[in-house]
Amino acid sequence: MTWRFALVIEPAASDDPRHDFAGTFTVIDASAPALTVGELSTQRGDGVFESIGVVDGHAQEVAAHLERLTHSAALCDLPVPHLEQWRQAVAVAAAACGPGEAVIKLILSRGIEHGPTPTAWVIAAPAADNTSARERGVRVVTLDRGYGIDTPSRAPWLLLGAKTLSYAVNMAAIREAKRRGADDAVFVSSDGFVLEGPTSSVILRRGDVFVTPTPGAGILHGTTQLSLFDELERRGFQTAYEDVPVAALREADAAWLVSSVRLAVPVVAVDGEPLPFDPPFTGSLNAYLLSPRD
Amino acid sequence: MTWRFALVIEPAASDDPRHDFAGTFTVIDASAPALTVGELSTQRGDGVFESIGVVDGHAQEVAAHLERLTHSAALCDLPVPHLEQWRQAVAVAAAACGPGEAVIKLILSRGIEHGPTPTAWVIAAPAADNTSARERGVRVVTLDRGYGIDTPSRAPWLLLGAKTLSYAVNMAAIREAKRRGADDAVFVSSDGFVLEGPTSSVILRRGDVFVTPTPGAGILHGTTQLSLFDELERRGFQTAYEDVPVAALREADAAWLVSSVRLAVPVVAVDGEPLPFDPPFTGSLNAYLLSPRD
Repeated sequence: MTWRFALVIEPAASDDPRHDFAGTFTVIDASAPALTVGELSTQRGDGVFESIGVVDGHAQEVAAHLERLTHSAALCDLPVPHLEQWRQAVAVAAAACGPGEAVIKLILSRGIEHGPTPTAWVIAAPAADNTSARERGVRVVTLDRGYGIDTPSRAPWLLLGAKTLSYAVNMAAIREAKRRGADDAVFVSSDGFVLEGPTSSVILRRGDVFVTPTPGAGILHGTTQLSLFDELERRGFQTAYEDVPVAALREADAAWLVSSVRLAVPVVAVDGEPLPFDPPFTGSLNAYLLSPRD
Repeated sequence: MTWRFALVIEPAASDDPRHDFAGTFTVIDASAPALTVGELSTQRGDGVFESIGVVDGHAQEVAAHLERLTHSAALCDLPVPHLEQWRQAVAVAAAACGPGEAVIKLILSRGIEHGPTPTAWVIAAPAADNTSARERGVRVVTLDRGYGIDTPSRAPWLLLGAKTLSYAVNMAAIREAKRRGADDAVFVSSDGFVLEGPTSSVILRRGDVFVTPTPGAGILHGTTQLSLFDELERRGFQTAYEDVPVAALREADAAWLVSSVRLAVPVVAVDGEPLPFDPPFTGSLNAYLLSPRD
């Protein structure tokens, strides 16, 4: 991802330290040095983020992403995001995106160590071409996330419900999947329940019912999954949040990894065993996800 | 921590991509922007680090730290650190430290997304004054790390034996400890064994035997703990690596959190229950740790 656009949100003189910035923002050169070595995002992955899909200059579901950013910030004891400021910053970044698919990333870092304020910035880039993944699907392997399904609610300091910048494990899981000859991973709890992908939510189909693992402390509530569930209900399907045993994924009539930029990607194999997939139906889901959504 | 000194290690034209840099380094202004927004350290905590204690310009145990950096890099599929280059960079940073205690941090990041090379830099700053913690000790709370003690060896993608930049959980654990009226945390496995502190190793004393949890995939092997065990053996004590049930910590004759910069800090309470501590003995350990060590 080569970031083509970047802006930094600046604190205002009047800023209340319980909130992040009500100030202005400054467009910067995305390829030039912008962050100091003291940044806690870089030293400790200490901050939160969101990735927003953009289609032909329209940023998708900004409100849902900002709501999740606020939730992640609260779990990490970061200042409350100043939503109007973020909305304006997203609008400026989206306007810089041009036609086609793009991605906007919002980052709220704890800032410079012992510094007075967090650091906040927004970056944008053209999206990778995800056509092949959407049309031909991905092979996944299940990887143990190490926790029991009930652990996160007992141990909020594990930050499992927050979208933090500490994503080294998520990236390692994708590398492990590739080492095993697959394309992506699905995290499962140590007691055998499906959780989520390293960068996606999991939806599976059982007849005319679409199921996703119950979001909770251990599973990020996916903005794309929420939007797809609305659409599926409009189409007359049933949707459900359940504890999903790994066997249910293997026996599903179909399954998808869904996320804001890659959108709905059919799972065509789980741990080497093929899973049925339905290209026209997946195509219709992605046509919906590519339409302007707020 | 206000970083007073920084250098960036530059790739050489001839660099083999399997190794990091054999090139030169450039001293930069630690307070000026140096990293781009595309840095994966900042976007995903995707990299590894070491913190080295410095006493009167002498960097302590550089070889052990570089060995662990190499180990962490391997677990994260990062290029093999070019040790001679890092040693030179540490020497330059140490020379810039001046008298008293300081800290040098080495960072090896995956670099800019899709970029050709990792990014590597070294920063230095005067250490915080740790006198009070060393003399009066810290109250700790035990916090569930979520994993069973055997999980990490089964799931290397969890990177639990690597010192990665994804430290948001470690920082959240310290905040949780403070919320509970303590000073620091001790992570325990979900099956009730002592693991380590968020930024330290745990050593406990049982009579004349000093015990630390067996380092393995889930516990970082502490450089300071290793050095202290050597010293304790020289003084005629026994040392042991064991699986340490939480009860053994509560019933210990003494316990310490040990790390490269704060050094040996006595644990004076565990979950609100006082633990005996021995200031003169702890003082002798810290006198040793403050002496030049290679």
